[in-house]
Amino acid sequence: MLLESLSRPIVAAPMGGGPTTPELVRAVAGAGGFGFLAAGYRSVEDLRGEMRAVGDGVRFGVNLFVPGPEARTEVYAEYVKRLGREAGEPRWSDDSWEEKLELLVREPVAVVSFTFGCPGSEEIGRLREAGSEGWVTVTSPEEAAQAEAAGADVLIAQGYEAGAHQGTFDLESEEEPFGLLPLLQLLRAETKLPLVATGGIGSGAGVAACLAAGASAVQLGSAFMLCPEAGTPEAHREALKERRPTRLTRAFTGRRARGAVNRFLSEHEDAPAAYPEVHYATAPIRAGAREAGDAEALNLWAGQAHWLAREEPAATVVKRFTDEAREALDSALRTLTSL
Amino acid sequence: MLLESLSRPIVAAPMGGGPTTPELVRAVAGAGGFGFLAAGYRSVEDLRGEMRAVGDGVRFGVNLFVPGPEARTEVYAEYVKRLGREAGEPRWSDDSWEEKLELLVREPVAVVSFTFGCPGSEEIGRLREAGSEGWVTVTSPEEAAQAEAAGADVLIAQGYEAGAHQGTFDLESEEEPFGLLPLLQLLRAETKLPLVATGGIGSGAGVAACLAAGASAVQLGSAFMLCPEAGTPEAHREALKERRPTRLTRAFTGRRARGAVNRFLSEHEDAPAAYPEVHYATAPIRAGAREAGDAEALNLWAGQAHWLAREEPAATVVKRFTDEAREALDSALRTLTSL
Repeated sequence: MLLESLSRPIVAAPMGGGPTTPELVRAVAGAGGFGFLAAGYRSVEDLRGEMRAVGDGVRFGVNLFVPGPEARTEVYAEYVKRLGREAGEPRWSDDSWEEKLELLVREPVAVVSFTFGCPGSEEIGRLREAGSEGWVTVTSPEEAAQAEAAGADVLIAQGYEAGAHQGTFDLESEEEPFGLLPLLQLLRAETKLPLVATGGIGSGAGVAACLAAGASAVQLGSAFMLCPEAGTPEAHREALKERRPTRLTRAFTGRRARGAVNRFLSEHEDAPAAYPEVHYATAPIRAGAREAGDAEALNLWAGQAHWLAREEPAATVVKRFTDEAREALDSALRTLTSL
Repeated sequence: MLLESLSRPIVAAPMGGGPTTPELVRAVAGAGGFGFLAAGYRSVEDLRGEMRAVGDGVRFGVNLFVPGPEARTEVYAEYVKRLGREAGEPRWSDDSWEEKLELLVREPVAVVSFTFGCPGSEEIGRLREAGSEGWVTVTSPEEAAQAEAAGADVLIAQGYEAGAHQGTFDLESEEEPFGLLPLLQLLRAETKLPLVATGGIGSGAGVAACLAAGASAVQLGSAFMLCPEAGTPEAHREALKERRPTRLTRAFTGRRARGAVNRFLSEHEDAPAAYPEVHYATAPIRAGAREAGDAEALNLWAGQAHWLAREEPAATVVKRFTDEAREALDSALRTLTSL
């Protein structure tokens, strides 16, 4: 079990579109944590290049997007039209699902994690035979039961507070996501699988809270985004330091994701559920904004505690959060015992 | 400081409309916790009767609703019309704010808590002179700063997960509420005031998590609703045991509140922000549903972890949650130390 072998219970989330880099993954592993590369939105060749760039002797994971259903054109046509001439061609894709699985069977990593759905037991089986663990991102007890039935080794329990995409299996779901704390308690009551908690964790006290609620480790996103090893665009870094409120939105990709509120998000509150069609449609707009350093048209993924993030090396994040967590647990236990 | 004198860090939330009873408050205090009476929606005479019914020698609190602005008729007129002939007369009221404050100055209780806004420093001052502490319910760092400036002794930090009304000061707010865990971390970074955590706590592990995140105690609602001492209507009790999803809705009262999804909630997703006008308009409909045992037209207030609630005496809830919390903290600390 990989989780048992970590010296610090900190996982760096796969952050597609730039923030995750091989350097970040290596630094987190070097400090006793564990990091994921983001396989989404990139070619098999690019992914292989990143895997090799992490370097020999470093254990790491790769996160795959499970393909979802193709949307009917009527669902997104009007939205794409409204995006104007800058918009790209909306298209469905399975993000090279089979080819990426084959790569990971041929060149296995320690953990393959899944987001946006549940892989089949056969797929988890192939990866496990190759020597990998299969972790599945879940946002509800029902998704957890499905992942357990498919043979998941670990559940990544993602709360409403989390930055970037919600892993919800049904991309059209309008149910309100569970907050991380009730989710952990509900899962703990129904499964014995190890849990990795993610969503809104911005301090060691947050880590301590998740461990107390029954998680074996926590996965952090925003907390690593200001690290020098991260590839976060400058305009995004600046927005993370501000006390901007965040919202769940389908404006950028057609799937619910949490971002700091900006103009683009506010102007497209009614964006349709069509992923990855909307992702491809907004891609040139986002690329232009990144180029121009325009935070108002970028997807400013951010968890609800984002302005607690600090500009410090990734190894410092791993160590500081673990040390703070130990102090927080120790202090809470002393308080409770003294009552 | 009242919190320091508790032998168990468990607070019973004020649950208006039936669930909170003097018996529940007494049982919680008897087990080493602390309970609140709900002053909202009742006359000063009724409140005084309940306060006396708690009995001598029992420390308890009273929760007051801070009056908000009167809504323009246009805001709710169409909604009330749509409710049909069964609807009551919509009207604004300050819920006898001054008279209830005067009662609490004359017959002081240990704690007066506030919801839906921030009392003035003069009002907190009067209560404190009478010997009470003033606790203010907050849902964001900005509200916390305002409450601290007004002289609050304790902040009740309420997360998105919480059942029943969100305490948000601005009743028209469309911002997404903070999950409890990020809220606790953000508040802990900005204030030294003691925090009482509330929202989605359905087990001792949840209590442990909040203490680890820096809370001094937790406030529980749903967890007490199945107790024999609670006045929860039968149809509501049954709904709490089911795995019904919950949602934030203005359908019942014109203020955002979390309830288990039922017909009435689903049919009125677009209810206006007008409190207490909508509360009075739906009151006869809810009373009829309670009478008829019809869960589909009742306001089924419930937190996100509601189906973890058990049918057990209130004292058992207080003791079980505390014991489980100690075990959870102990286990998390051992795990972290052994890495």
